[in-house]
Amino acid sequence: SNKSKTTFSNRGMSLEEDINDTNAYYRTTNQAIIHKKPTPVQIVKVDYPRRSAAVIKEGYFKQASTTDYNGVYRGKYIDFEAKETKNKTSFPLSNIHDHQIKHMESVVNHGGICFILIRFAVYDQTFFLPAMKLLTLWNSQFKGGRKSIPYQKIKEAGSLIPFKFPKRVDYLTIIDELYF
Amino acid sequence: SNKSKTTFSNRGMSLEEDINDTNAYYRTTNQAIIHKKPTPVQIVKVDYPRRSAAVIKEGYFKQASTTDYNGVYRGKYIDFEAKETKNKTSFPLSNIHDHQIKHMESVVNHGGICFILIRFAVYDQTFFLPAMKLLTLWNSQFKGGRKSIPYQKIKEAGSLIPFKFPKRVDYLTIIDELYF
Ligand SMILES: [Mg+2]
Ligand SMILES: [Mg+2]
Repeated sequence: SNKSKTTFSNRGMSLEEDINDTNAYYRTTNQAIIHKKPTPVQIVKVDYPRRSAAVIKEGYFKQASTTDYNGVYRGKYIDFEAKETKNKTSFPLSNIHDHQIKHMESVVNHGGICFILIRFAVYDQTFFLPAMKLLTLWNSQFKGGRKSIPYQKIKEAGSLIPFKFPKRVDYLTIIDELYF
Repeated sequence: SNKSKTTFSNRGMSLEEDINDTNAYYRTTNQAIIHKKPTPVQIVKVDYPRRSAAVIKEGYFKQASTTDYNGVYRGKYIDFEAKETKNKTSFPLSNIHDHQIKHMESVVNHGGICFILIRFAVYDQTFFLPAMKLLTLWNSQFKGGRKSIPYQKIKEAGSLIPFKFPKRVDYLTIIDELYF
Protein backbone atom coordinates (compact mmCIF):
# COMPACT_ATOMS: atom_id res chain seq x y z
CA SER A 1 0.00 0.00 0.00
CA ASN A 2 1.20 3.49 -0.79
CA LYS A 3 -1.11 5.11 1.73
CA SER A 4 1.68 6.36 3.95
CA LYS A 5 3.27 8.19 1.02
CA THR A 6 0.09 9.99 -0.02
CA THR A 7 0.07 12.67 2.63
CA PHE A 8 0.50 15.47 0.13
CA SER A 9 -0.65 13.92 -3.07
CA ASN A 10 -3.54 11.78 -4.04
CA ARG A 11 -1.94 10.19 -7.08
CA GLY A 12 -2.15 6.45 -7.34
CA MET A 13 -5.43 6.06 -5.45
CA SER A 14 -8.65 5.82 -7.40
CA LEU A 15 -11.52 8.16 -6.63
CA GLU A 16 -13.50 5.16 -5.38
CA GLU A 17 -10.75 4.15 -2.94
CA ASP A 18 -10.48 7.72 -1.71
CA ILE A 19 -14.23 8.00 -1.16
CA ASN A 20 -14.47 4.59 0.53
CA ASP A 21 -11.68 5.52 2.95
CA THR A 22 -13.24 8.92 3.59
CA ASN A 23 -16.63 7.30 4.27
CA ALA A 24 -15.01 4.80 6.64
CA TYR A 25 -13.42 7.73 8.46
CA TYR A 26 -16.77 9.56 8.62
CA ARG A 27 -18.36 6.45 10.13
CA THR A 28 -15.57 5.81 12.62
CA THR A 29 -15.68 9.42 13.81
CA ASN A 30 -19.49 9.30 13.82
CA GLN A 31 -19.90 12.18 11.35
CA ALA A 32 -22.09 10.45 8.77
CA ILE A 33 -23.30 6.98 7.78
CA ILE A 34 -22.61 6.71 4.07
CA HIS A 35 -21.81 3.52 2.14
CA LYS A 36 -21.01 2.50 -1.39
CA LYS A 37 -23.74 0.30 -2.83
CA PRO A 38 -22.60 -3.15 -3.91
CA THR A 39 -22.05 -3.71 -7.63
CA PRO A 40 -25.30 -5.16 -8.99
CA VAL A 41 -24.76 -8.70 -10.25
CA GLN A 42 -27.22 -10.99 -11.97
CA ILE A 43 -26.53 -14.41 -10.55
CA VAL A 44 -27.27 -17.24 -12.98
CA LYS A 45 -25.56 -20.33 -11.57
CA VAL A 46 -24.50 -21.19 -8.04
CA ASP A 47 -22.69 -24.31 -6.81
CA TYR A 48 -23.15 -25.51 -3.25
CA PRO A 49 -20.09 -27.61 -2.46
CA ARG A 50 -20.22 -29.79 0.67
CA ARG A 51 -18.81 -28.17 3.75
CA SER A 52 -17.85 -24.92 2.06
CA ALA A 53 -19.33 -21.66 0.92
CA ALA A 54 -21.64 -21.34 -2.07
CA VAL A 55 -19.76 -20.44 -5.26
CA ILE A 56 -21.20 -18.25 -7.98
CA LYS A 57 -20.25 -20.00 -11.23
CA GLU A 58 -22.04 -17.74 -13.68
CA GLY A 59 -22.98 -14.13 -13.19
CA TYR A 60 -23.23 -10.90 -15.14
CA PHE A 61 -22.74 -7.26 -14.30
CA LYS A 62 -26.01 -5.36 -14.34
CA GLN A 63 -26.28 -1.67 -15.05
CA ALA A 64 -26.80 0.24 -11.81
CA SER A 65 -30.28 1.78 -11.66
CA THR A 66 -29.24 4.41 -9.15
CA THR A 67 -26.03 6.10 -8.02
CA ASP A 68 -22.90 4.79 -6.28
CA TYR A 69 -23.29 6.07 -2.74
CA ASN A 70 -26.00 6.96 -0.28
CA GLY A 71 -26.63 7.40 3.41
CA VAL A 72 -27.51 9.89 6.12
CA TYR A 73 -25.84 13.08 7.35
CA ARG A 74 -27.32 15.50 9.89
CA GLY A 75 -30.70 13.84 9.40
CA LYS A 76 -30.67 14.40 5.63
CA TYR A 77 -30.62 11.82 2.88
CA ILE A 78 -27.32 11.93 0.95
CA ASP A 79 -27.02 10.45 -2.54
CA PHE A 80 -24.20 10.83 -5.03
CA GLU A 81 -22.39 9.48 -8.02
CA ALA A 82 -18.61 9.49 -8.49
CA LYS A 83 -16.83 9.71 -11.83
CA GLU A 84 -13.22 9.96 -12.81
CA THR A 85 -11.96 11.15 -16.16
CA LYS A 86 -8.55 11.14 -17.80
CA ASN A 87 -9.66 14.02 -20.04
CA LYS A 88 -7.94 17.37 -19.66
CA THR A 89 -10.45 19.79 -21.04
CA SER A 90 -13.92 18.39 -20.36
CA PHE A 91 -16.06 15.73 -18.71
CA PRO A 92 -18.02 13.66 -21.29
CA LEU A 93 -21.72 13.40 -20.39
CA SER A 94 -21.74 9.89 -21.85
CA ASN A 95 -20.16 8.84 -18.53
CA ILE A 96 -23.55 9.28 -16.89
CA HIS A 97 -26.55 7.11 -17.69
CA ASP A 98 -30.01 8.40 -18.37
CA HIS A 99 -31.58 6.44 -15.48
CA GLN A 100 -28.96 7.85 -13.10
CA ILE A 101 -29.99 11.36 -14.13
CA LYS A 102 -33.66 10.46 -13.56
CA HIS A 103 -32.77 9.02 -10.16
CA MET A 104 -30.87 12.18 -9.18
CA GLU A 105 -33.78 14.37 -10.27
CA SER A 106 -36.17 12.29 -8.13
CA VAL A 107 -33.90 12.48 -5.10
CA VAL A 108 -33.74 16.28 -5.37
CA ASN A 109 -37.54 16.43 -5.71
CA HIS A 110 -37.91 14.37 -2.53
CA GLY A 111 -35.68 16.68 -0.51
CA GLY A 112 -32.47 14.66 -0.57
CA ILE A 113 -29.00 16.18 -0.97
CA CYS A 114 -27.76 14.92 -4.31
CA PHE A 115 -24.57 15.62 -6.26
CA ILE A 116 -21.79 14.22 -8.39
CA LEU A 117 -18.09 14.07 -7.56
CA ILE A 118 -15.98 14.49 -10.68
CA ARG A 119 -12.26 13.88 -10.62
CA PHE A 120 -9.92 15.14 -13.28
CA ALA A 121 -7.13 12.61 -12.80
CA VAL A 122 -4.49 14.60 -14.69
CA TYR A 123 -4.92 17.61 -12.40
CA ASP A 124 -5.51 15.46 -9.30
CA GLN A 125 -8.59 17.60 -8.63
CA THR A 126 -12.01 16.47 -7.43
CA PHE A 127 -15.05 18.70 -7.82
CA PHE A 128 -18.42 18.68 -6.08
CA LEU A 129 -21.21 19.52 -8.51
CA PRO A 130 -24.78 19.73 -7.13
CA ALA A 131 -27.31 17.58 -9.00
CA MET A 132 -29.36 20.64 -10.01
CA LYS A 133 -26.38 22.11 -11.88
CA LEU A 134 -25.58 18.78 -13.48
CA LEU A 135 -29.22 18.44 -14.59
CA THR A 136 -29.15 21.84 -16.26
CA LEU A 137 -25.97 20.98 -18.16
CA TRP A 138 -27.34 17.52 -19.01
CA ASN A 139 -30.58 18.91 -20.42
CA SER A 140 -28.82 21.59 -22.47
CA GLN A 141 -27.11 18.89 -24.58
CA PHE A 142 -30.53 18.08 -26.08
CA LYS A 143 -31.05 21.74 -27.04
CA GLY A 144 -27.99 21.77 -29.24
CA GLY A 145 -25.60 22.12 -26.34
CA ARG A 146 -22.31 20.35 -25.74
CA LYS A 147 -22.08 16.61 -25.06
CA SER A 148 -19.48 17.32 -22.42
CA ILE A 149 -18.93 19.78 -19.59
CA PRO A 150 -15.81 21.90 -20.03
CA TYR A 151 -13.30 21.68 -17.19
CA GLN A 152 -13.56 25.45 -16.79
CA LYS A 153 -17.33 25.21 -16.37
CA ILE A 154 -17.01 22.58 -13.64
CA LYS A 155 -14.45 24.78 -11.90
CA GLU A 156 -16.94 27.66 -11.91
CA ALA A 157 -20.18 25.79 -11.18
CA GLY A 158 -18.71 23.25 -8.78
CA SER A 159 -16.61 23.35 -5.63
CA LEU A 160 -13.05 22.04 -5.48
CA ILE A 161 -12.72 19.53 -2.66
CA PRO A 162 -9.50 20.21 -0.74
CA PHE A 163 -7.21 17.23 -0.37
CA LYS A 164 -6.59 16.61 3.32
CA PHE A 165 -5.36 13.47 4.98
CA PRO A 166 -7.09 11.30 6.20
CA LYS A 167 -10.27 12.64 4.57
CA ARG A 168 -8.96 12.54 1.03
CA VAL A 169 -12.34 13.54 -0.46
CA ASP A 170 -13.87 15.60 2.33
CA TYR A 171 -17.20 16.33 0.61
CA LEU A 172 -19.05 16.91 3.90
CA THR A 173 -17.32 20.31 4.23
CA ILE A 174 -18.90 21.29 0.91
CA ILE A 175 -22.32 19.97 2.01
CA ASP A 176 -22.04 22.07 5.19
CA GLU A 177 -21.35 25.16 3.08
CA LEU A 178 -24.02 24.60 0.46
CA TYR A 179 -26.95 22.99 2.29
CA PHE A 180 -26.86 23.97 5.96
CA SER B 1 -46.88 -14.93 -12.66
CA ASN B 2 -49.63 -15.25 -10.08
CA LYS B 3 -49.85 -11.53 -9.48
CA SER B 4 -53.37 -11.20 -10.88
CA LYS B 5 -54.59 -13.80 -8.40
CA THR B 6 -53.14 -12.15 -5.33
CA THR B 7 -55.67 -9.39 -4.93
CA PHE B 8 -56.91 -10.65 -1.57
CA SER B 9 -54.09 -12.79 -0.33
CA ASN B 10 -50.41 -12.40 -0.21
CA ARG B 11 -49.55 -16.09 -0.12
CA GLY B 12 -47.00 -17.29 -2.59
CA MET B 13 -45.08 -14.03 -2.82
CA SER B 14 -41.98 -13.56 -0.73
CA LEU B 15 -41.62 -10.55 1.51
CA GLU B 16 -38.80 -9.33 -0.72
CA GLU B 17 -40.99 -9.51 -3.84
CA ASP B 18 -43.78 -7.71 -2.03
CA ILE B 19 -41.46 -4.94 -0.87
CA ASN B 20 -39.79 -4.59 -4.25
CA ASP B 21 -43.17 -4.23 -5.97
CA THR B 22 -44.36 -1.77 -3.32
CA ASN B 23 -41.19 0.30 -3.74
CA ALA B 24 -41.63 0.28 -7.52
CA TYR B 25 -45.19 1.54 -7.00
CA TYR B 26 -43.95 4.25 -4.61
CA ARG B 27 -41.42 5.39 -7.22
CA THR B 28 -43.89 5.32 -10.11
CA THR B 29 -46.43 7.34 -8.14
CA ASN B 30 -43.65 9.63 -6.92
CA GLN B 31 -44.26 8.96 -3.22
CA ALA B 32 -40.76 7.89 -2.21
CA ILE B 33 -37.45 6.84 -3.74
CA ILE B 34 -36.48 3.62 -2.00
CA HIS B 35 -34.46 0.76 -3.47
CA LYS B 36 -33.19 -2.62 -2.42
CA LYS B 37 -29.41 -2.68 -2.23
CA PRO B 38 -27.77 -5.22 -4.51
CA THR B 39 -26.57 -8.45 -2.91
CA PRO B 40 -22.89 -7.94 -2.06
CA VAL B 41 -20.73 -10.29 -4.10
CA GLN B 42 -16.99 -10.78 -3.91
CA ILE B 43 -15.90 -11.23 -7.49
CA VAL B 44 -12.84 -13.46 -7.90
CA LYS B 45 -12.70 -14.42 -11.56
CA VAL B 46 -14.14 -12.73 -14.64
CA ASP B 47 -13.98 -13.88 -18.26
CA TYR B 48 -14.14 -11.36 -21.09
CA PRO B 49 -15.35 -13.28 -24.14
CA ARG B 50 -14.99 -11.60 -27.51
CA ARG B 51 -18.03 -9.64 -28.65
CA SER B 52 -20.10 -10.46 -25.58
CA ALA B 53 -20.63 -9.42 -21.99
CA ALA B 54 -18.12 -10.12 -19.22
CA VAL B 55 -18.95 -13.32 -17.32
CA ILE B 56 -18.31 -13.77 -13.62
CA LYS B 57 -16.85 -17.27 -13.33
CA GLU B 58 -16.09 -17.28 -9.62
CA GLY B 59 -17.75 -15.23 -6.94
CA TYR B 60 -18.86 -15.51 -3.33
CA PHE B 61 -21.69 -14.04 -1.31
CA LYS B 62 -20.45 -11.49 1.19
CA GLN B 63 -22.23 -10.70 4.41
CA ALA B 64 -24.11 -7.43 4.07
CA SER B 65 -22.62 -4.73 6.30
CA THR B 66 -25.81 -2.72 6.36
CA THR B 67 -29.54 -3.32 5.82
CA ASP B 68 -31.55 -4.37 2.78
CA TYR B 69 -33.28 -1.16 1.76
CA ASN B 70 -32.72 2.57 1.90
CA GLY B 71 -33.82 5.79 0.28
CA VAL B 72 -35.63 9.08 0.79
CA TYR B 73 -39.20 9.92 1.84
CA ARG B 74 -40.49 13.41 2.63
CA GLY B 75 -36.89 14.60 2.88
CA LYS B 76 -35.96 12.00 5.48
CA TYR B 77 -33.48 9.18 5.20
CA ILE B 78 -35.24 5.78 5.28
CA ASP B 79 -33.35 2.59 6.14
CA PHE B 80 -34.74 -0.84 6.90
CA GLU B 81 -34.19 -4.55 7.05
CA ALA B 82 -36.73 -7.19 6.04
CA LYS B 83 -36.97 -10.65 7.55
CA GLU B 84 -39.37 -13.50 7.07
CA THR B 85 -39.84 -16.38 9.49
CA LYS B 86 -41.72 -19.66 9.28
CA ASN B 87 -41.92 -19.75 13.08
CA LYS B 88 -45.33 -19.49 14.70
CA THR B 89 -44.54 -18.24 18.17
CA SER B 90 -41.44 -16.07 17.93
CA PHE B 91 -38.86 -14.35 15.75
CA PRO B 92 -35.31 -15.66 16.42
CA LEU B 93 -32.82 -12.84 16.99
CA SER B 94 -30.14 -14.94 15.27
CA ASN B 95 -31.78 -13.78 12.02
CA ILE B 96 -30.19 -10.39 12.53
CA HIS B 97 -26.45 -9.80 12.45
CA ASP B 98 -24.54 -7.79 14.98
CA HIS B 99 -23.21 -5.32 12.39
CA GLN B 100 -26.76 -4.74 11.13
CA ILE B 101 -27.80 -3.81 14.66
CA LYS B 102 -24.83 -1.42 14.91
CA HIS B 103 -25.77 0.10 11.57
CA MET B 104 -29.39 0.60 12.65
CA GLU B 105 -28.28 2.24 15.88
CA SER B 106 -26.03 4.64 13.92
CA VAL B 107 -28.80 5.53 11.51
CA VAL B 108 -31.15 6.39 14.39
CA ASN B 109 -28.41 8.50 16.00
CA HIS B 110 -27.98 10.43 12.75
CA GLY B 111 -31.68 11.24 12.48
CA GLY B 112 -32.72 8.63 9.94
CA ILE B 113 -35.97 6.67 10.08
CA CYS B 114 -34.95 3.09 10.71
CA PHE B 115 -36.98 -0.07 11.28
CA ILE B 116 -37.37 -3.74 10.53
CA LEU B 117 -40.20 -5.44 8.67
CA ILE B 118 -40.91 -8.90 10.09
CA ARG B 119 -43.21 -11.30 8.32
CA PHE B 120 -44.74 -14.31 10.00
CA ALA B 121 -45.34 -16.42 6.92
CA VAL B 122 -47.81 -18.82 8.56
CA TYR B 123 -50.10 -15.95 9.55
CA ASP B 124 -49.46 -13.98 6.39
CA GLN B 125 -48.79 -10.96 8.61
CA THR B 126 -46.07 -8.34 8.27
CA PHE B 127 -45.13 -6.09 11.17
CA PHE B 128 -43.29 -2.77 11.29
CA LEU B 129 -40.97 -2.59 14.29
CA PRO B 130 -39.04 0.67 14.87
CA ALA B 131 -35.28 0.19 15.28
CA MET B 132 -35.34 1.63 18.80
CA LYS B 133 -37.72 -1.10 19.95
CA LEU B 134 -35.70 -3.78 18.18
CA LEU B 135 -32.50 -2.48 19.82
CA THR B 136 -34.07 -2.71 23.28
CA LEU B 137 -35.16 -6.30 22.67
CA TRP B 138 -31.79 -7.11 21.11
CA ASN B 139 -29.83 -5.77 24.08
CA SER B 140 -32.02 -7.55 26.65
CA GLN B 141 -30.86 -10.93 25.32
CA PHE B 142 -27.40 -10.18 26.79
CA LYS B 143 -28.92 -9.47 30.20
CA GLY B 144 -30.38 -12.94 30.50
CA GLY B 145 -33.32 -12.17 28.22
CA ARG B 146 -34.78 -14.28 25.43
CA LYS B 147 -32.90 -15.09 22.20
CA SER B 148 -36.10 -14.51 20.27
CA ILE B 149 -38.96 -12.02 20.21
CA PRO B 150 -42.35 -13.61 20.96
CA TYR B 151 -44.98 -13.12 18.27
CA GLN B 152 -47.24 -11.54 20.88
CA LYS B 153 -44.53 -9.00 21.76
CA ILE B 154 -44.10 -8.00 18.12
CA LYS B 155 -47.87 -7.63 17.82
CA GLU B 156 -47.84 -5.23 20.79
CA ALA B 157 -44.63 -3.28 20.10
CA GLY B 158 -44.95 -3.19 16.32
CA SER B 159 -47.60 -2.14 13.82
CA LEU B 160 -49.38 -4.60 11.55
CA ILE B 161 -49.06 -3.48 7.93
CA PRO B 162 -52.43 -3.83 6.19
CA PHE B 163 -52.38 -5.84 2.98
CA LYS B 164 -53.70 -3.73 0.15
CA PHE B 165 -53.22 -4.20 -3.55
CA PRO B 166 -51.10 -2.88 -5.25
CA LYS B 167 -49.08 -1.75 -2.21
CA ARG B 168 -48.74 -5.16 -0.66
CA VAL B 169 -46.44 -3.90 2.12
CA ASP B 170 -47.56 -0.30 2.52
CA TYR B 171 -45.05 0.68 5.22
CA LEU B 172 -45.21 4.40 4.34
CA THR B 173 -48.61 4.62 6.04
CA ILE B 174 -46.95 3.43 9.26
CA ILE B 175 -44.09 5.93 8.81
CA ASP B 176 -46.66 8.72 8.38
CA GLU B 177 -48.32 7.70 11.65
CA LEU B 178 -45.16 7.22 13.71
CA TYR B 179 -42.71 9.87 12.46
CA PHE B 180 -44.64 12.81 10.99
MG1 LIG C 1 -19.40 5.70 -10.45
MG1 LIG D 1 -33.19 -9.29 4.68
